[in-house]
Amino acid sequence: MDYFSGYISDLVEQFASLPGIGTKSAQRLAFYIISQPEEKAKKLAGSILAARSKVRYCKCCCTLTDSEICPICANPKRDKKTIMVVETPRDLAAYEKTGKYEGVYHVLHGAISPMLGIGPDDIRLKELMARLSSGEVEEVIVATNSSLEGETTAMYISKLIRPAGIKVTRIASGVPVGGDLENIDEVTLLRALDGRVALC
Amino acid sequence: MDYFSGYISDLVEQFASLPGIGTKSAQRLAFYIISQPEEKAKKLAGSILAARSKVRYCKCCCTLTDSEICPICANPKRDKKTIMVVETPRDLAAYEKTGKYEGVYHVLHGAISPMLGIGPDDIRLKELMARLSSGEVEEVIVATNSSLEGETTAMYISKLIRPAGIKVTRIASGVPVGGDLENIDEVTLLRALDGRVALC
Repeated sequence: MDYFSGYISDLVEQFASLPGIGTKSAQRLAFYIISQPEEKAKKLAGSILAARSKVRYCKCCCTLTDSEICPICANPKRDKKTIMVVETPRDLAAYEKTGKYEGVYHVLHGAISPMLGIGPDDIRLKELMARLSSGEVEEVIVATNSSLEGETTAMYISKLIRPAGIKVTRIASGVPVGGDLENIDEVTLLRALDGRVALC
Repeated sequence: MDYFSGYISDLVEQFASLPGIGTKSAQRLAFYIISQPEEKAKKLAGSILAARSKVRYCKCCCTLTDSEICPICANPKRDKKTIMVVETPRDLAAYEKTGKYEGVYHVLHGAISPMLGIGPDDIRLKELMARLSSGEVEEVIVATNSSLEGETTAMYISKLIRPAGIKVTRIASGVPVGGDLENIDEVTLLRALDGRVALC
């Protein structure tokens, strides 16, 4: 990009450093920004700075929020006796979209992964244990991903919490609704078989 | 994204307004920015503002640059008698990468498209004609894309310039090098046939 300007190559480099954006996309984005009214560039830059400086972790459930306590934890209608443990704020958003879950959450910001060197102390487990010590919580629903890391984390949490006499459950694993059996992997098929439930 | 913060939804919206970035990618980018050190967010925002405010059109060839005249036009070694007309600065970059073209360029910033309501006055054709009036130019190589719009633009330029007695050429259209005949569309195959050249 040296045919144009150092400012363009710099912007391309910055965009290309974002996850999922390659050099070609970064170039396209940089040229787009330059072709837009200055107002548009200012708005984008302002949003980036504002989000980075204002957003922090909820003191209670560790999700992202711009207040001390997130709206879910602050909502008196939510059932504080049930905590759903998720890996990321996006997983929380996925369950919130269903509109059916009435408990609260706890966001770990990751999962235990010996491969990547992520141990129990690197995710927000201490914060979860602190919440449980109040004695108010009756059930912890472990909704980490159905991946190796997610399962490892679920097992670890279960072993950690069970001695405290709190019920620990795991979201069901099986055939997705609308899923076509022939296109589903073997592990999922066996899980669905193991987890079969009686019809009526 | 209202489960988190207006700052996050705002950033997601800004990212999603960029070309080629959907809502899911925009969310991923927003969460990434928030998870990074503040320095990183400041750098990205700074690059956006700098590129938008410093980059302008070269007074001669209309490409993007941060100086009055771009480095290619300012280079005394480039052959000013040959102008290659391209649609975008990225097309210029593609030819510069070959390292073999020694003439200069003219960037139209678009192509004529009656469908999209883009006429000859909406692209940088006036600037091209002004350059030709000096009488110094001997050849104009039309390197617009091989699309309907690119071909229309090429025809238009050719009709516009020919009366001035300047040689107008068009880059060859045909089978790409390394291309497999069976995978190439019919129009390209017929073009390659029409444009056949004598061997030796």
